[in-house]
Amino acid sequence: MELLDKLNWRYATKSMNGATVSEDKIERILEAARLAPTSSGLQPFEIIVIKNQDIKEKIKPVAWNQSVITECSHLLVFAAWDTYTADRINYMFDLTNDIRGFKNDGWENYRQQLLNSYPQKDAEENFNHAAKQAYIALGVALVAAANEKVDSTPMEGFSADQVDAILGLREKGLRSTVFLTLGYRKEDEDWLVNLKKVRKPMEDFITVIN
Amino acid sequence: MELLDKLNWRYATKSMNGATVSEDKIERILEAARLAPTSSGLQPFEIIVIKNQDIKEKIKPVAWNQSVITECSHLLVFAAWDTYTADRINYMFDLTNDIRGFKNDGWENYRQQLLNSYPQKDAEENFNHAAKQAYIALGVALVAAANEKVDSTPMEGFSADQVDAILGLREKGLRSTVFLTLGYRKEDEDWLVNLKKVRKPMEDFITVIN
Repeated sequence: MELLDKLNWRYATKSMNGATVSEDKIERILEAARLAPTSSGLQPFEIIVIKNQDIKEKIKPVAWNQSVITECSHLLVFAAWDTYTADRINYMFDLTNDIRGFKNDGWENYRQQLLNSYPQKDAEENFNHAAKQAYIALGVALVAAANEKVDSTPMEGFSADQVDAILGLREKGLRSTVFLTLGYRKEDEDWLVNLKKVRKPMEDFITVIN
Repeated sequence: MELLDKLNWRYATKSMNGATVSEDKIERILEAARLAPTSSGLQPFEIIVIKNQDIKEKIKPVAWNQSVITECSHLLVFAAWDTYTADRINYMFDLTNDIRGFKNDGWENYRQQLLNSYPQKDAEENFNHAAKQAYIALGVALVAAANEKVDSTPMEGFSADQVDAILGLREKGLRSTVFLTLGYRKEDEDWLVNLKKVRKPMEDFITVIN
């Protein structure tokens, strides 16, 4: 199946049948998210992978009681850094030096540039920036899910503060920003499954400057 | 090539060779971006597709003089809505009714819910939310580019205000939020092409709750 066919096949699944997605598929979807690019390569987010049914049951009422929260196989919570700190920046620059096996002046200057900018900024501004990077990975992960013929639902409809409390995210310097459920559509109960996909026509979506 | 191989093949290309990407590839990449999901399906962004070399030359100095701006084949500027307005919300709900061929109470109630919330919010908050949706499409588009064996560079390093002025975006209620260049890597001049890809190890990236 071509990529565009996969993107047309996928939809924001509203009802799932509870079947478990195999671990090898989950691993490939998570690996795709891990490979997503981020600003300065900082990867300023983590993913909480929830299989535990009790935790899903706790999250459901703070997520508009959407049934897919408990019907899914795996609930991915994209949790962005609450801010950029020197430690977090240094971790990624040190990791880069370790993996590439050398130090480089240009790279070290860039490290200083980031150290002189992000940690001094407003935490909320930094969190918003980090959250955007998580959304890139969300985009990559949902393509990866479709590629595995796994259904998924990107979701913003939840109380971030309450999800953070349930998962203890704030203590780790993280804030929930978006969900992706993974599982299998329940065709006979999902009101959206047979409705046409709606997108702006291309002429309202792009402007070409030749 | 498997999806993960494509994601390992791609990298933030720092130097491109000026070769033109064929229109059919560009169309498929843009179609993938158009198919990306967004919050409430509002697609609160547009993409400016810049082939014009003079415009690229104007943008380059306000984008840290990064050579890839002028070396790329197509420069995609993801421009998010400056805010959510009633007109914009109604456009997508009306389009949905048109495409699906019926009206539905649940859907109309949801329309009212959004009309009673977004337009009353702070414009900056709305813009940030819209920008995040653009980042989902950025993620999808860069997978689609890799799928076409087209190189790409996601870029935030530009003065959004100056890009907005060059492209006249503010007058259209849009604000530039992220770039994606499309083109072909210039292997002998790109310092990044042969360096190892750096990502956090999986154990620092995910937390599994079984």
